[in-house]
Amino acid sequence: MTYSAADRSLVEVCYTPGQYALYKENFDIVVVIDVLRATSAITTALHHGVKEIIPVSSVEEARAYKAQGYIAGAERDGQVVEGFDFGNSPYAYMEPHMQGKTVVLTTTNGTKAIQMASDRGTVVIGCLNNLDYLCRWLIEQQRNTLILASGWKDKVNLEDTICAGAIADTLLETRRFRTDEDSTVAAKFIYRSAREHLWSFLRASSHRRRLIKLNIQRDVKYCLTLNTVPCIPVLRHGVLVKMDYTPSDSPLRATRHEVR
Amino acid sequence: MTYSAADRSLVEVCYTPGQYALYKENFDIVVVIDVLRATSAITTALHHGVKEIIPVSSVEEARAYKAQGYIAGAERDGQVVEGFDFGNSPYAYMEPHMQGKTVVLTTTNGTKAIQMASDRGTVVIGCLNNLDYLCRWLIEQQRNTLILASGWKDKVNLEDTICAGAIADTLLETRRFRTDEDSTVAAKFIYRSAREHLWSFLRASSHRRRLIKLNIQRDVKYCLTLNTVPCIPVLRHGVLVKMDYTPSDSPLRATRHEVR
Repeated sequence: MTYSAADRSLVEVCYTPGQYALYKENFDIVVVIDVLRATSAITTALHHGVKEIIPVSSVEEARAYKAQGYIAGAERDGQVVEGFDFGNSPYAYMEPHMQGKTVVLTTTNGTKAIQMASDRGTVVIGCLNNLDYLCRWLIEQQRNTLILASGWKDKVNLEDTICAGAIADTLLETRRFRTDEDSTVAAKFIYRSAREHLWSFLRASSHRRRLIKLNIQRDVKYCLTLNTVPCIPVLRHGVLVKMDYTPSDSPLRATRHEVR
Repeated sequence: MTYSAADRSLVEVCYTPGQYALYKENFDIVVVIDVLRATSAITTALHHGVKEIIPVSSVEEARAYKAQGYIAGAERDGQVVEGFDFGNSPYAYMEPHMQGKTVVLTTTNGTKAIQMASDRGTVVIGCLNNLDYLCRWLIEQQRNTLILASGWKDKVNLEDTICAGAIADTLLETRRFRTDEDSTVAAKFIYRSAREHLWSFLRASSHRRRLIKLNIQRDVKYCLTLNTVPCIPVLRHGVLVKMDYTPSDSPLRATRHEVR
């Protein structure tokens, strides 16, 4: 089946929450990305049996939930906030005591972006861990899709841009989607520059340097590994839950390009 | 001569005027870029004998100058504003009657970015036309340098990002400069993806598509041609004039990479 330009849906990339207002018209689905580490952790958590995650913007909100007896995590500037037991390390969410629980989470960039996107019809969570699985679902929906990178304090970051570019590239290659924005084209080319050697490429990433200082190399390696977690978190009434989704058997990519 | 990390100056890329506030600390020099077409036109104008250019943010200001007898140009959304004789086509500034004149100019994105940067010590104008010439001067200064792309209505655009990435790449390759920002690393990689086939790469550019509709292909081709105009416009007391600069004979690039 081929699609004329008019039949194609939009896929666009917004690099930072600060630019979201410039992009937010006409999108049915928003994909929020914060590869290091919020959206990787959220995806991992729901895949490993956490029942639901309540994303909140401020540490104060997380504290208020904690006072009510909720399990709550908080991260700021890459570190666990004092008074909390965990932040956004994906490994924290694999622990047995997390199973079946409701978890409250606030992070520097990611949960802010999720809150911001919650005015849209459908908000889902993307990361490198669920890349192909998420792309399959997005292609099946074929709706106007905005990929919102969390960035770092409203600046562009490399790992989110690469992940966003990978999703955009995959959707555009189906020819069921089109783009009108240079930010999307640029993200696609950054991804294509990076995909053959993602790890060494991201050596240049400022956030990765920031995290290396914090000695969480294991987390970084986990978050930069593709297609390990077949799970799509979706926002339902302000709460992130695992989407009930079984992908079809059709090949994801028509071309020879395979994500490595 | 080698430079330790501490001796190196910063070079960073800011993609849009809307993000300027996030970057503006610690920079001695700001390079403003609006490849299609404001900064290409300004550089061309001063090289071809225009005495000075007064950049203004609003059409109203340009009209007020015009009423006082100034030669004034105004462009909005790629078109000459009604009541003005020219906009930001570089060819307009090569006309004999422009020689020796003071010209007032307002454009959709470029003059706004220039105004915004005018709080800095030194503001210079960059484009693909003066790329290597400008890079030589920036390397000789070796000061903390911010490259401010004008973008398109506060969104990223490809041609400015590529030009900014080319400057950043050239400065970083001297190893007298360093970068702390992912936006700079990403711009460098976009430039490297694009440099072998700039014209076809920019076919994807949204602004170029916008300009093709306006039938100004000749302007676009001019603005995308590298190193044709040995001139650096510099802002002095709110007025752009040609810098008095003679580059040294030393090779610009130590490596085999040559801009094509």
